[in-house]
Amino acid sequence: MKINGTPYRSVWVNEKDGWSVHIFDQTRLPFALDVLQLTTPEQVAHAIKTMQVRGAPLIGAVAAYGLALALRTDSSDNALEQQAAMLAATRPTAINLRWAIERMLTHLRPLTPAERVAAAYAEAGRICDEDAAQNEAIGQHGLELLRTLAAQRGKNDKINILTHCNAGWIATVDWGTALAPIYMAHDEGLNVHVWVDETRPRNQGAALTAWELGSHGVPHTVIADNAGGHLMQHGLVDIVIVGTDRVTRNADVANKIGTYLKALAARDNGVPFWVALPSTTIDWQVADGVREIPIEERSGTEITHISGRDDNGQISRVQITPDGSTAANPAFDVTPARLVTGLITEKGCCAATPEGLLSLFPEQG
Amino acid sequence: MKINGTPYRSVWVNEKDGWSVHIFDQTRLPFALDVLQLTTPEQVAHAIKTMQVRGAPLIGAVAAYGLALALRTDSSDNALEQQAAMLAATRPTAINLRWAIERMLTHLRPLTPAERVAAAYAEAGRICDEDAAQNEAIGQHGLELLRTLAAQRGKNDKINILTHCNAGWIATVDWGTALAPIYMAHDEGLNVHVWVDETRPRNQGAALTAWELGSHGVPHTVIADNAGGHLMQHGLVDIVIVGTDRVTRNADVANKIGTYLKALAARDNGVPFWVALPSTTIDWQVADGVREIPIEERSGTEITHISGRDDNGQISRVQITPDGSTAANPAFDVTPARLVTGLITEKGCCAATPEGLLSLFPEQG
Repeated sequence: MKINGTPYRSVWVNEKDGWSVHIFDQTRLPFALDVLQLTTPEQVAHAIKTMQVRGAPLIGAVAAYGLALALRTDSSDNALEQQAAMLAATRPTAINLRWAIERMLTHLRPLTPAERVAAAYAEAGRICDEDAAQNEAIGQHGLELLRTLAAQRGKNDKINILTHCNAGWIATVDWGTALAPIYMAHDEGLNVHVWVDETRPRNQGAALTAWELGSHGVPHTVIADNAGGHLMQHGLVDIVIVGTDRVTRNADVANKIGTYLKALAARDNGVPFWVALPSTTIDWQVADGVREIPIEERSGTEITHISGRDDNGQISRVQITPDGSTAANPAFDVTPARLVTGLITEKGCCAATPEGLLSLFPEQG
Repeated sequence: MKINGTPYRSVWVNEKDGWSVHIFDQTRLPFALDVLQLTTPEQVAHAIKTMQVRGAPLIGAVAAYGLALALRTDSSDNALEQQAAMLAATRPTAINLRWAIERMLTHLRPLTPAERVAAAYAEAGRICDEDAAQNEAIGQHGLELLRTLAAQRGKNDKINILTHCNAGWIATVDWGTALAPIYMAHDEGLNVHVWVDETRPRNQGAALTAWELGSHGVPHTVIADNAGGHLMQHGLVDIVIVGTDRVTRNADVANKIGTYLKALAARDNGVPFWVALPSTTIDWQVADGVREIPIEERSGTEITHISGRDDNGQISRVQITPDGSTAANPAFDVTPARLVTGLITEKGCCAATPEGLLSLFPEQG
């Protein structure tokens, strides 16, 4: 996608040295667009843990490059397995991370150590290209849903879409998942408007989704996470589209904490609730999402302190809780499949059921 | 209630001068306990609009004193009506404000201008005393619910209570509504623990409820508003108790934005959802809360900027959204009665139905 007219991906290899890896520091957005240069797997792990990169598809892609960086120092069998395990352990909930590492291992294990570095870069590059292509396909399939909504309305009636967290192009390699259909709808002239959940505690909506949409010119309004139910009660939301960190074979959906509350409100008000994902986000090994998906518990300081731009233009943080009050910070929740209208994948849309998923991915049957 | 061992109410008349009115500046809590002296009705209106005082019962009590302050300057019939209308218009959603002003008018209109100042202070004082007594009674009735929960468990098992916003003693004249039973349960040795929704955008949970509970020694944990559904899915919430700004005769409940989402999650997980209120919060003129209760739309800067204590110990604010992104800020939502397990009033507990309310308040039938 473009920033001020220049096309970017959210991760890329340095063109001059041919091996170091660049990302945007997403903890600095929307106030600074800092490009970081990663040269070691430890830097990659730090970037994932501290959410300088986040978003399930992007985490997988960056971790793949982390393994390539690791092999530059030591491409032995031992190092390959150790570094892969280290990178896979950086965050527990998103399945794409494990998927990308497994794919890299499957590709690299049969090779000689001497062959592995070049092969790792090539495979990480393919992961990135495929993610971008899958997300573009997700955008096309989701666009059909928005076209249908537009056709049901007057030509210039606004289509109000609510989204939670950031499932835009900087959560992926390019295009995004939940936001891809919205960009395409806007580009073809549909009158879309996005309600952007701020997404506490880390405000990925207020900081990242609002920045993405604003940069692309898509009309949007930031709201407190608390507001979505009220808007739906009053007919101000036509469709909810969110991304996901892991979908089970039963179509339960792990996503940023609070997604489940929006799915409940959508159901209570007859608002369609769609989840956009590349198939790399499906965990075919897991059935019951609420019981089986590990939910990352992050630091309570993400609750007690909030970062932003102060009156002097500096990025700083303020404490919002009294000294002595502790906080709990589960980072994800699971929306049961029964609350999900459908899934938007690169293969098309399907019902949020085991049968729906198998209709698109029969090879998993 | 006590702060560091000294008993306070949340509004009181200056003992020395006998007429000026004191409040805590709740926009400065939890980092500073500033007492404000209000001497004019304009100051009272400003304090209500800017939420230096907030909480439906407290707004009513402070507005009553605002009318007393106004009458000190001009106690004519005209002034009485004008100042009452000015104060009643400060915030639209809480019904207690209108109730208190109406009560004052009913009491003061028949009097001569010369009699009105002393009568206004006396009536405002009675409103305060009655609010404190009603909330103490709410506490006793709610305590029974918590005792029943405790009896169903092992003696030392934790009872996890989730609350939203602040319905504690500083939202009322004393005791609080939703928190009154919790204080009493804690004081008699029940093992209560409170999940405190931070309550964006103004963080009344993170700032005020956490401060109140911490000051009283009640174990509590602050969570993002997004987290409650996840906690309920995993059996970590035994009961939800919230306050309210207006209850219709059908028992629909207006309360701080986001309450509806927690009621949906409670219903989906079989968690009892109770609402605590003095009868002054009931609007017998209104039936359908979603359609009929006016919902205050506050400034978008409450979304785009967050206040707290910076690293230098100063209360300052940071911007969390990109320049150019706008925000919407509905301050309340309405939870339909069908999602409410019951109401806790000063007259006892009842079902959230028209019949339930009339069983406690037959004079409204």
